Amino acid sequence: MRQKYYRISIIGAGGVAWQLAPALESAGHTIEEIYSRSYEKALALSLQLYQASVIEKPDFSKSHAEILIIAVNDDAIQEVAPKLILPSEGTIVVHTSGSQPLSTLQDVKTVYTGVFYPLQTFTYDKHTNFSNIPICLESDNSHALKVLTKIAKSISRTVKLISSKERAVLHVAAVFACNFSNHLLSIAESLMKHQHLDLALLKPLITETIHNSLTIGPQKAQTGPAVRNDQTTINRHMAFLKKHDPEYAKIYDLLTKHIREINK
Amino acid sequence: MRQKYYRISIIGAGGVAWQLAPALESAGHTIEEIYSRSYEKALALSLQLYQASVIEKPDFSKSHAEILIIAVNDDAIQEVAPKLILPSEGTIVVHTSGSQPLSTLQDVKTVYTGVFYPLQTFTYDKHTNFSNIPICLESDNSHALKVLTKIAKSISRTVKLISSKERAVLHVAAVFACNFSNHLLSIAESLMKHQHLDLALLKPLITETIHNSLTIGPQKAQTGPAVRNDQTTINRHMAFLKKHDPEYAKIYDLLTKHIREINK
Repeated sequence: MRQKYYRISIIGAGGVAWQLAPALESAGHTIEEIYSRSYEKALALSLQLYQASVIEKPDFSKSHAEILIIAVNDDAIQEVAPKLILPSEGTIVVHTSGSQPLSTLQDVKTVYTGVFYPLQTFTYDKHTNFSNIPICLESDNSHALKVLTKIAKSISRTVKLISSKERAVLHVAAVFACNFSNHLLSIAESLMKHQHLDLALLKPLITETIHNSLTIGPQKAQTGPAVRNDQTTINRHMAFLKKHDPEYAKIYDLLTKHIREINK
Repeated sequence: MRQKYYRISIIGAGGVAWQLAPALESAGHTIEEIYSRSYEKALALSLQLYQASVIEKPDFSKSHAEILIIAVNDDAIQEVAPKLILPSEGTIVVHTSGSQPLSTLQDVKTVYTGVFYPLQTFTYDKHTNFSNIPICLESDNSHALKVLTKIAKSISRTVKLISSKERAVLHVAAVFACNFSNHLLSIAESLMKHQHLDLALLKPLITETIHNSLTIGPQKAQTGPAVRNDQTTINRHMAFLKKHDPEYAKIYDLLTKHIREINK
């Protein structure tokens, strides 16, 4: 596939935009404009880039951009999308959300809509290497899909076509695997604090558990009292948790029963 | 602290014994004997070691060991402990369990009992580097504690005195942080399989989430619809899960409500 460089504008100046814009530049593409509801944020992002200008309204009529990437909060997509004034009828407009269907862009005045969803969590402060981050693409237009594939492949080794339906399930799965797992670490931290112990003590065990889980698969990697059916330990834990925090006990009980149910 | 090498015997030939025995040898200690209910397993382990012999009964009366390490399943400790015939009255006897109190060893015929708990999950197949693994020590005897500290420091940089009460809480915390997180990965995997997607797609996101959680702390690292209070997404996820698997919906509901409660 011949390398082609694109002219791209970015809507949004949050974590995704902050990481994606420099990565696209490094891959050879040009960031033309940045637009954000917060002019200050857009300006700050533009200062990280070679030549991107900041615009105050979502009016791209004078832009040379071939692609507009909407990298804003999920609920802000529907707000900004209909207001976009495009450079041309052929402009490709994508959003970067894992939770929003392609149809969120149905009011944009182009036939070239799509989704460009990098499957990662982004923060401002640290530089993201996209090469190992899966980029999930969707479009019902083959020209748009071709262009998006070229752009995605210019920054990542893992580019997947993922439909809105698949992406919806992927998003629920990510909530379980990431948001909820993180919350369980919160609970672990609060339990340990109660004994003046630091969560850091569990770090090697947590890291190894996740590594094993992703290497041999979570089903095979499951350990602990629930899967061992160690009722003595479960009873001891439940008695402690009921006294310590009944909500923790509820969560312990539900997850323990589910592990036993799945593994019996 | 002057380096001193000890003569150690191991009871058990499971994951912990399989990793701990070679690590102790590498640190300069001598493994005298291996005893396991399964002679075959004990033999297999002894073949990994320089000069350890296998004994068929827990009779260490002719042993030169100064320390006996009971590295067996939690419920097997109480079974084997009273049967131990010690080399001398001064032998130090420890178990390696996170879930069992020190008092599990009260029937052992020595005053030198203790706990030597490496906070990690162990498998047979892969070589464990103990240097980053916390070793949690307990003993009500200062001589035993001194010896255990020397041994622990000879293989690990993180050696902590952890009481039975603290260890009990540590163990519950580990169930939340590790066993339950792993189970959430199981759920994520099964959701993805349903759309013919591979859990591997979520690997970079999971790894980054856990990394962030352990770096900036889980409370600050929490993301997702629950902490954002994004009711539209939560409703969409719940509607999907109720149809797909009501048990998944229950878990989603309980954890989402708890995240909102904690963060409000």
